[in-house]
Amino acid sequence: MKTDRTIGRRIGIFDSGAGGLTVVRSIVEHRFFDEIVYYGDTARVPYGTKDAATITRYALEALEFFKNFDIDLLVTACNSVSAHALPDLRANADFPIYGVIDPGVLALKNSGLGKEARILVLGTRATIASGRYQRGIRALGYTRIEAVAPSLFVPVVEEGLFDGPVLQSTLEHYFKELTPPDAVILGCTHFPLIAEAIRNYFPNRPLLIHSGEAIAEHLESEGYPPGRAKKTDLKIFASENPNALKSIAKRWLKR
Amino acid sequence: MKTDRTIGRRIGIFDSGAGGLTVVRSIVEHRFFDEIVYYGDTARVPYGTKDAATITRYALEALEFFKNFDIDLLVTACNSVSAHALPDLRANADFPIYGVIDPGVLALKNSGLGKEARILVLGTRATIASGRYQRGIRALGYTRIEAVAPSLFVPVVEEGLFDGPVLQSTLEHYFKELTPPDAVILGCTHFPLIAEAIRNYFPNRPLLIHSGEAIAEHLESEGYPPGRAKKTDLKIFASENPNALKSIAKRWLKR
Repeated sequence: MKTDRTIGRRIGIFDSGAGGLTVVRSIVEHRFFDEIVYYGDTARVPYGTKDAATITRYALEALEFFKNFDIDLLVTACNSVSAHALPDLRANADFPIYGVIDPGVLALKNSGLGKEARILVLGTRATIASGRYQRGIRALGYTRIEAVAPSLFVPVVEEGLFDGPVLQSTLEHYFKELTPPDAVILGCTHFPLIAEAIRNYFPNRPLLIHSGEAIAEHLESEGYPPGRAKKTDLKIFASENPNALKSIAKRWLKR
Repeated sequence: MKTDRTIGRRIGIFDSGAGGLTVVRSIVEHRFFDEIVYYGDTARVPYGTKDAATITRYALEALEFFKNFDIDLLVTACNSVSAHALPDLRANADFPIYGVIDPGVLALKNSGLGKEARILVLGTRATIASGRYQRGIRALGYTRIEAVAPSLFVPVVEEGLFDGPVLQSTLEHYFKELTPPDAVILGCTHFPLIAEAIRNYFPNRPLLIHSGEAIAEHLESEGYPPGRAKKTDLKIFASENPNALKSIAKRWLKR
């Protein structure tokens, strides 16, 4: 384990597919690192519908891939991995590994929302089933917590339907029974891409908490200074069709 | 390669996940075999969004699993596997292997539809990109062929939304530009579960061709007599969470 974390120059970012590129965007904007090594397990995406043992097995395989590079730290951008695989990953690495759930909970804490606020947690089936967001939020003193796994959000985003009637009927399907929340945790890297539609669904336009932004704040609080790098190079790898991932990266990082 | 195909007692059925259970239902109803060994690669589902090399690699791994059983033949219920992996599978097995695309094309041929009929092929991205249905149908003399990859149908079915507004807006998204077809090829094992909604979308209620039914007819034409078995035992295996697959099987086989 490296002790001086401020020297980090190369960060690894792992996701089941393209979703983690929303985290990349934030890391690039904050210029923490000279280089990002991104690995998407596109041959086995999605993880969020798989069970904990499978997710952990796949994450450990990805960790071996990252050992080919001299990375200073690893971020598991995938919430499903963050929910289930962190202890096993940390037991097998000699660099720090950060998930996105604790940073998301910390961002809620820093939001200044009162403890009577209604919190809606959105995540994949695997993330919600782990209960990790819910426990973290309850530990902050919030008691009005709803957790929903809107499984169709991921394929809807992957189909590029960032607005329109399919997205609207999908939002309606998962949200129609809910009391409008004061804050929504976007507990899956795909969800920031439909953030505006999620916020606009609720008449009170709740506060949204993004994993990507949250991890940037969290890294800063851990001693990684933003703005240190002149620019951040991005190297993209995938378990299948890296060119498809690279063109998604070009498109999404512009958005 | 066994020469007397009428002796088949044990059939292997392979699918990426639960979808192939629609094929199981048809094989059970026709009582061709004493035993079905079903294997669903639930840890890596879906296949239809993956590329040809990945699909072939996964199918070859599944083939090794089936070699643990003394199966007389193997059906790849997954259209994406049938579209891309059959030559490699056949080169590595000493039992016959059937896909579902040729049977589907044969069922269209046997339908008696005139050559001026409009044919709509529905399948995953991988199946449609292979062009195998389109070439087979063109070889029958049909010229009015549309091929569409409605990628959201699989997750919508997996979410259990067999009717209602999400399914309707999804049908509308993929079908609104189409001239109503005379026949629809359901080129993915998930699609029979929303067959009625697909037919009802078009005012002319087109003929639907199911992979599951088609493979049963095809096996009969290959010399496997239906009604031979008193009853068909079903053994279910999965690369993750076999119990979930077993409970889906109970539910779907009743429908």
